[in-house]
Amino acid sequence: MKTSSTVQLAAAVALVSTHLLLPTAHAQPRQQGPQVVSPEVAADGRITFRILAPNAGEVKVGGSDIPGIGQNGLMTKGTNGVWEVIVGPVQPGAYRYNFNVDGVSVIDPRSSNVSESNNNVWSLVHVPGAEWMDTQIVPRGSVAEVTYYSSSLKRFRRMHVYTPPGYESGEGRFPVFYLLHGAGDCDDSWTTVGRAGFILDNLIAAGNARPMVVVMPAGHAGPFRFGGPRPAVDEFSQDFLNDIMPHVEKNYRVHTDRKNRAIAGLSMGGAQTLNVGVPHLDKFAYLGVYSSGVFGIVRRPDRPAPEGPSFEEQHQAVLADAKLKEGLKLFWFATGKDDFLVETSRATVEMFKKHNFDVVYNEGEGGHTWIVWREYLKEFAPQLFQ
Amino acid sequence: MKTSSTVQLAAAVALVSTHLLLPTAHAQPRQQGPQVVSPEVAADGRITFRILAPNAGEVKVGGSDIPGIGQNGLMTKGTNGVWEVIVGPVQPGAYRYNFNVDGVSVIDPRSSNVSESNNNVWSLVHVPGAEWMDTQIVPRGSVAEVTYYSSSLKRFRRMHVYTPPGYESGEGRFPVFYLLHGAGDCDDSWTTVGRAGFILDNLIAAGNARPMVVVMPAGHAGPFRFGGPRPAVDEFSQDFLNDIMPHVEKNYRVHTDRKNRAIAGLSMGGAQTLNVGVPHLDKFAYLGVYSSGVFGIVRRPDRPAPEGPSFEEQHQAVLADAKLKEGLKLFWFATGKDDFLVETSRATVEMFKKHNFDVVYNEGEGGHTWIVWREYLKEFAPQLFQ
Repeated sequence: MKTSSTVQLAAAVALVSTHLLLPTAHAQPRQQGPQVVSPEVAADGRITFRILAPNAGEVKVGGSDIPGIGQNGLMTKGTNGVWEVIVGPVQPGAYRYNFNVDGVSVIDPRSSNVSESNNNVWSLVHVPGAEWMDTQIVPRGSVAEVTYYSSSLKRFRRMHVYTPPGYESGEGRFPVFYLLHGAGDCDDSWTTVGRAGFILDNLIAAGNARPMVVVMPAGHAGPFRFGGPRPAVDEFSQDFLNDIMPHVEKNYRVHTDRKNRAIAGLSMGGAQTLNVGVPHLDKFAYLGVYSSGVFGIVRRPDRPAPEGPSFEEQHQAVLADAKLKEGLKLFWFATGKDDFLVETSRATVEMFKKHNFDVVYNEGEGGHTWIVWREYLKEFAPQLFQ
Repeated sequence: MKTSSTVQLAAAVALVSTHLLLPTAHAQPRQQGPQVVSPEVAADGRITFRILAPNAGEVKVGGSDIPGIGQNGLMTKGTNGVWEVIVGPVQPGAYRYNFNVDGVSVIDPRSSNVSESNNNVWSLVHVPGAEWMDTQIVPRGSVAEVTYYSSSLKRFRRMHVYTPPGYESGEGRFPVFYLLHGAGDCDDSWTTVGRAGFILDNLIAAGNARPMVVVMPAGHAGPFRFGGPRPAVDEFSQDFLNDIMPHVEKNYRVHTDRKNRAIAGLSMGGAQTLNVGVPHLDKFAYLGVYSSGVFGIVRRPDRPAPEGPSFEEQHQAVLADAKLKEGLKLFWFATGKDDFLVETSRATVEMFKKHNFDVVYNEGEGGHTWIVWREYLKEFAPQLFQ
């Protein structure tokens, strides 16, 4: 059906675009420069990164989880002003990256695939090949951005909420899993680089996980602190308990009893899981701590001793309560051997075991990266609400 | 409640962050460079943009809707390597912008607020002060990212879906409004720069619009074409009719009769609204065309004559069908006087009037910008499903 309106549309699209895209050099449709494709993922998992920067003196690509480019990532300038580097083969997964052009951090101007972080944005490249986190033809859930007013923090906050296949068309209540991010991340991160929605879709489609609502809140309760004055209260716990949970339980069809509620997090989010979950153990039947533990449990000679009572001292009553432990169906830790927090994880696990908690601890390969966090989600989610 | 775990957390957050954020220069927590804040919105609506680029020779800021910076936007370098410019006062709204550093397009490295476009990403700054599109303390809907497999296009596609306050916790069916973006945009654009979710929340809270599901699909059915070979079929219409609508009607609690279905779009999306809506007028009771019309209806001496039958000739039967017109409750056009498509809008309105359509046409101030498109949504949505 070749119609004249199609013809007219194509002509007008070109016309419209010259108007809409004028302000940026790279978006100029009729520019004379080379057409740059970036990133380009080959079938063998090698990734070619490219950026047009004819006037630059040095261009690098950086990405914490991509082997070999973390420290250098120097790119080579071609005769056409396009800088290029090939990395990998890289194992299947999602990877954040950006460019550094003469000292300025630059996301890939040729890609609209991004992952928000705590205070910046990364470009994102997906290397397919791992079925459990690939985009598959299966019934799909969706991930919503939800803005709520935090009465605890006196400002608007955002969370991401995964609803499973069938939720939006159906009825009935679902169990709820709160999934927390790390210090370098934001509430968008589990959805983008973490591929949480795709992992859950695939697990549910295979019958390996129960349909559940997954709530991914924003973990940074204040401006990010590099030291400085300590907050007088645990602002995240207040926001979580007074605002996030009530908002979810009011606005979503979720069960509100302990056995249908789970919480887990990575790194900072793992510590928050313990800070929220242990004092309120009556509310959670499942706790997951990824690449984390009680922060500060391992004394470091180069740091001042923590002030005040330890985590263990603060939560004596809960730690001694046998009845509370009965309702805790899973207390699951996982940390990689190369993780800089592995000692923290081990010491935390030992502390809870000493108090007769039935702790599962997986210490496998890997470091403090999204490569293992996606796998931890894949291992943890099937164990929930069974 | 000053606890030792809070203290330990603050210390460990700093520790963790040095590990997580290493790869990018700007994210170095312990860098010696100045702390850059950007963008900074003053109470009077002036915006200060800043970027650290000590080695750059020329830095500009660009943003199509921000007065005064569209063409030049030159920034001034301070002694500390931070480039700065103050613009405005700017009227309340959301504005896309980016930097151009020695010819390289750069989003703001100090902001995680972004708006995806057709093939790139913009930084986004929100200037509050217009209550109807501000983030207000009202019952909130949510906006979900939904991935579906398009059997028409043989690939995965994404759409954004707004569900109104009460949808996620409740039951019952809602009317559905399909809202299409322009050529320079993607399915994310109405949600970010368009603030559609906030506009709907505010309208619904004030009792000025009915709760409805708003579906924002991806309009570019193929790689963006700047001329070149024309597609043999109207791929977007196929995707819309065969995949998007069925996916929504299967997965959401929406009514599926004509009087509960609306479609509107801006620019390219307005032309698509006519291309989808007119041949299938039995399916839609509300059509909205923002800053658009039948593309090519106005002959331009500098362009070749369109081939084949005109839109009017193609759709003779529908245009003549009085019974179909009876069920069309609103056929609404709006275009700004300064819009380069204003003649297209006028000619399209005249053509439909000639065929006895009851067309509403608003020709107000403004050009081909998101400034008017947000206002058109605010004016159009209250008229739906009444």
